[in-house]
Amino acid sequence: MFKALHHYIFWRAAIPSTLLNSKSFVLGSQMGFSTTSSHMSKLLFRQLFEKESSTYTYLLADVSHPDKPALLIDPVDRTVDRDLSLVKDLGLKLIYAINTHVHADHITGTGLIKTKAPAVKSIISKASNSKADILVQSGDKIYFGDLFLEVRATPGHTVGCITYVTGDGPEQPQPRMAFTGDAVLIRGCGRTDFQGGSSETLYKSVHSQIFTLPKDALIYPAHDYRGFTVSTVGEEMLYNPRLTKDEETFKNIMANLNLAYPKMIDIAVPANMVCGLQDPTPNNAC
Amino acid sequence: MFKALHHYIFWRAAIPSTLLNSKSFVLGSQMGFSTTSSHMSKLLFRQLFEKESSTYTYLLADVSHPDKPALLIDPVDRTVDRDLSLVKDLGLKLIYAINTHVHADHITGTGLIKTKAPAVKSIISKASNSKADILVQSGDKIYFGDLFLEVRATPGHTVGCITYVTGDGPEQPQPRMAFTGDAVLIRGCGRTDFQGGSSETLYKSVHSQIFTLPKDALIYPAHDYRGFTVSTVGEEMLYNPRLTKDEETFKNIMANLNLAYPKMIDIAVPANMVCGLQDPTPNNAC
Repeated sequence: MFKALHHYIFWRAAIPSTLLNSKSFVLGSQMGFSTTSSHMSKLLFRQLFEKESSTYTYLLADVSHPDKPALLIDPVDRTVDRDLSLVKDLGLKLIYAINTHVHADHITGTGLIKTKAPAVKSIISKASNSKADILVQSGDKIYFGDLFLEVRATPGHTVGCITYVTGDGPEQPQPRMAFTGDAVLIRGCGRTDFQGGSSETLYKSVHSQIFTLPKDALIYPAHDYRGFTVSTVGEEMLYNPRLTKDEETFKNIMANLNLAYPKMIDIAVPANMVCGLQDPTPNNAC
Repeated sequence: MFKALHHYIFWRAAIPSTLLNSKSFVLGSQMGFSTTSSHMSKLLFRQLFEKESSTYTYLLADVSHPDKPALLIDPVDRTVDRDLSLVKDLGLKLIYAINTHVHADHITGTGLIKTKAPAVKSIISKASNSKADILVQSGDKIYFGDLFLEVRATPGHTVGCITYVTGDGPEQPQPRMAFTGDAVLIRGCGRTDFQGGSSETLYKSVHSQIFTLPKDALIYPAHDYRGFTVSTVGEEMLYNPRLTKDEETFKNIMANLNLAYPKMIDIAVPANMVCGLQDPTPNNAC
């Protein structure tokens, strides 16, 4: 019975009270209970916000694994110290700093993280034509402990956009979580007029790679400008004002947004193609 | 077995795919499975952010109850339309608009909500000496469907501060969630130099009413200024730079913060004592 049920458990930042008697234990471990399974992976999850660019950074860790391996999705340069401090407080071992895409509105923190924690590996899509330690493509899996992220190519906002989705399996968190970058925003989507963007491609990406996930899958975007923190595939399929339209209408909407030129794009994009480092040297190579 | 296990389940905004075939169903219901319990309450939870005052508003609903009854904690006037739109999208019935305290930095949305949704009842502490439909005090329970919030008086930031804690019981969400207002902030706490504030009282409140919760209890504050969204009791007991100190040190810290006079206090406090309405009439009484 337990084995069947734990498909449905979404563990979130729980800590066993029995382990909290001294500062020596690792925060973020989860409460235990008997199970017929020999091992149960436990996700620690934190959503973090960078106010200036309205960017969400996500911290995920497998806290049932002895190493407490962790990853950060879409870290921002100006909040790297905050993120690394939290990683330390929670007793985690950061192994990956990952981007969903080459951002045009802020400088990624992946390079800065590597200068402060050289063992961390940076990850971005091969299609982004950017530098990183690991270049991923659709179908790849990124393991942290016994948990993993599935790589789904979702181009359209940029040519190299990736949606990372928590694994599908008995030991993986449920509901699934989709880190959509700018492909799907809550009741919106990223613009498609720069960086190899294409509204037609974005529409196909979202409908084939994101809206095919279970309806209860949680959508965690790279940004929100109105104070929303999370949505679901089901909600966006019903209420997204752009992506619920047919493809032609969507393309017309995207062609007529009349948005201003992105004010940081000329600085951010070149920097973000080399992990946010203006001057990557052999010592801080991304 | 299921009955024992569901103490540990934290349900979060999951939607049954089988119910998503039309717009007529209620979003936010959870996936079902067999259980030996006759009924299992299911929490839908959303955290919402108001950028100008860095305020978090929380939406909670019992989506297994036929009415999908919901409540909002600490709504802000300028984001009321966003919040009510989300309530509608999710098919919820808003029954309560609740304040943790009389805020000094923004105008509460409870009165405005009542003008737009007259069936909603406002709630604040009796000790706040403010107007609301329901005045609560320590030990009260606020039911929404089969879920409830426990009222804990945590004065010190203001004389009438309340921490609302999700229920303790087999049908209630786990880990427990504490909506601490300004009593405990993530790695901080509210100031104690206005509105009947007292550092001694705040210290006693936090240590007796919040730090006695299970270590895995989630702390959801009224504000965060650095982009954190959640902490735990265990984390704050280890890493809160003020509240981990002994009482005398804490009082010294609070007496020497040298903070500026709160710029909105003279407008916000009088308004918030009447649900944020500058001119409460019989038609929009709070």
